[in-house]
Amino acid sequence: MPNLRRDPILDRWVIIAEDRAKRPRAFTSRENFAQIDPDEAEQACPFCPGNEHETPPEAFALRDHAAEPNAPGWSVRVVPNKYPALVRESVASLAGETDVLRSLANAPPMPAERSVYDSAPAIGVHDVIIDTPRHVTTVGELTAEEFALSLAAIRLRLQALAGETGINHALVFKNVGTAAGATLDHLHSQLMAAGTVFPLVAGEICGAANFYETHGECLFCRMIQLERINGSRVVAESAAFIAFCPFASRFAYEMWILPKLHASRFESMALENLADLASLARSAIAKIERLFQPPAYNLVFHTSPFDSAAIEHYHWHIEVFPRVTIPAGFEWGSGCAVNPVSPETAAARLREIDAH
Amino acid sequence: MPNLRRDPILDRWVIIAEDRAKRPRAFTSRENFAQIDPDEAEQACPFCPGNEHETPPEAFALRDHAAEPNAPGWSVRVVPNKYPALVRESVASLAGETDVLRSLANAPPMPAERSVYDSAPAIGVHDVIIDTPRHVTTVGELTAEEFALSLAAIRLRLQALAGETGINHALVFKNVGTAAGATLDHLHSQLMAAGTVFPLVAGEICGAANFYETHGECLFCRMIQLERINGSRVVAESAAFIAFCPFASRFAYEMWILPKLHASRFESMALENLADLASLARSAIAKIERLFQPPAYNLVFHTSPFDSAAIEHYHWHIEVFPRVTIPAGFEWGSGCAVNPVSPETAAARLREIDAH
Repeated sequence: MPNLRRDPILDRWVIIAEDRAKRPRAFTSRENFAQIDPDEAEQACPFCPGNEHETPPEAFALRDHAAEPNAPGWSVRVVPNKYPALVRESVASLAGETDVLRSLANAPPMPAERSVYDSAPAIGVHDVIIDTPRHVTTVGELTAEEFALSLAAIRLRLQALAGETGINHALVFKNVGTAAGATLDHLHSQLMAAGTVFPLVAGEICGAANFYETHGECLFCRMIQLERINGSRVVAESAAFIAFCPFASRFAYEMWILPKLHASRFESMALENLADLASLARSAIAKIERLFQPPAYNLVFHTSPFDSAAIEHYHWHIEVFPRVTIPAGFEWGSGCAVNPVSPETAAARLREIDAH
Repeated sequence: MPNLRRDPILDRWVIIAEDRAKRPRAFTSRENFAQIDPDEAEQACPFCPGNEHETPPEAFALRDHAAEPNAPGWSVRVVPNKYPALVRESVASLAGETDVLRSLANAPPMPAERSVYDSAPAIGVHDVIIDTPRHVTTVGELTAEEFALSLAAIRLRLQALAGETGINHALVFKNVGTAAGATLDHLHSQLMAAGTVFPLVAGEICGAANFYETHGECLFCRMIQLERINGSRVVAESAAFIAFCPFASRFAYEMWILPKLHASRFESMALENLADLASLARSAIAKIERLFQPPAYNLVFHTSPFDSAAIEHYHWHIEVFPRVTIPAGFEWGSGCAVNPVSPETAAARLREIDAH
């Protein structure tokens, strides 16, 4: 059972999820003395049609009406993560006694420790969203139609979770390439949802609320306006969306994609905008894929918590982090990023690349 | 010229340092269309004796009194980083007009943008500390005596910087292995110093001050006491130091090394403790090296700012982050770490490994 632990110094929560060490390619260096499950090492792609039994039973799928669940015939398939970092409360409370004891042994605040150490079961949802039955490995290999379908599935999944008791926020993300933390090649997203807002999004909402209070407008709307006037950091624009490299990019070639009109939650997006978003995002990401071989990037959806009505100060967006440099001791030890490519240089190069 | 940029949403500063893209192995993926400087690609190790001219002139060295500076005969050598992320104010103000104009072009808050975007020259010090003239690549390959000399050099360097105007904090760190961000094999540390306290250390000092206010004792001293009672997370102990895997470890096999008696700054450490620290740290780190091949880890010194007298609530320490899993979209997008190895499991395995 994964558990949450609070860092007593920084008041920062960490998820300890030992089952995740069992994933194929969980470690990037060869682990000495490790036992490798031979079944895992040799398994075929668990996300390809025909191998549906290799994943936990699906939570949801876009599929041919005639087709059976957990069998071929799907376009997008959503399954629980086999190695979850967050588990549903029902699973947590149903865990066998042995599991509970083992979990307590691993999360051992003893009476004397309780003023310092704090832990809790890691309750939530951890899904995998398989974008396409085709064994492709990058967003650029999807057709715009396939990407739109995958975004539609994410939208539906978020709408369903919004109604669940105990769930208040979801983070959807995609790891593409080994250097970006992908342990399975077949293109997929993950969705993690919990009762509290994830720290970075909570920080963004707080910063944006401060700006709104002072200036009476959405900070993201203001940034979009400034970026369109300045132009030097803009990568691409469509009718309803804009992609630019943010002024204080943490990563080389970092790129954000935002709706040009104010909107605080992804899942409320009008269906007619899905194709526009899929087309713009796909071609902007394909530019990043053309820049580095092999491609390695993360894609993250930042959207409002479920409990807030549409809010005036927060603006949903997608952040793309190419993983072509390695944050090292300075970054991890200081909390300050060093980026060797300015967003102006990055955007100029990305604009030049022809990718459709 | 590197510049600092403020993220308007998260109020987080980022260093944009374009010269760092020129480093050999600056990018982990093959950059398409990139121009590679053939001299850089083929150069011999710039940190080995005989190649002293390959680095900027040394700032400081522990060397044979008879030997000339910038020539063989040294034990530990400190040189300015050739690709700095922070530059001295004198360098910044002496930069040619073209440089300044280029820097402005890259950091372009226009009048309309000033309420949103903020930037400043990245002023400070960025040194490289070459641990040994021998071309070794890991801490475990050093003798305890060599590591003690290298720690002594860091101590002297911090003492010197403490007296410099405009410098208030230093972060010393080591990147070992390509997966940990090392771009040169020859073992070395880096030192970055600036006028303000780096965010993560500022956060630690703030959290520790809160605990001190409530409980009247140093949080780190309390943690050491609890860890010694519990024992399950302790890796090793010497007369004056302890190494343990912290309760809320962010990384698999993360390990901290602290003085057992309260001390807020590394550079005030009694000389007679250097050998003890070097011996304990070297063998504890060698355990991590034995666990994964090839070794990849960062080592970070967290110590008090220079302007504070010895403080009761902060406790200097060394953090070691093995880089054997890759923080992916969830970690970068949520600000929350997922660690697949509990510190209890990690410490138990590290205790078993015999490394001297």
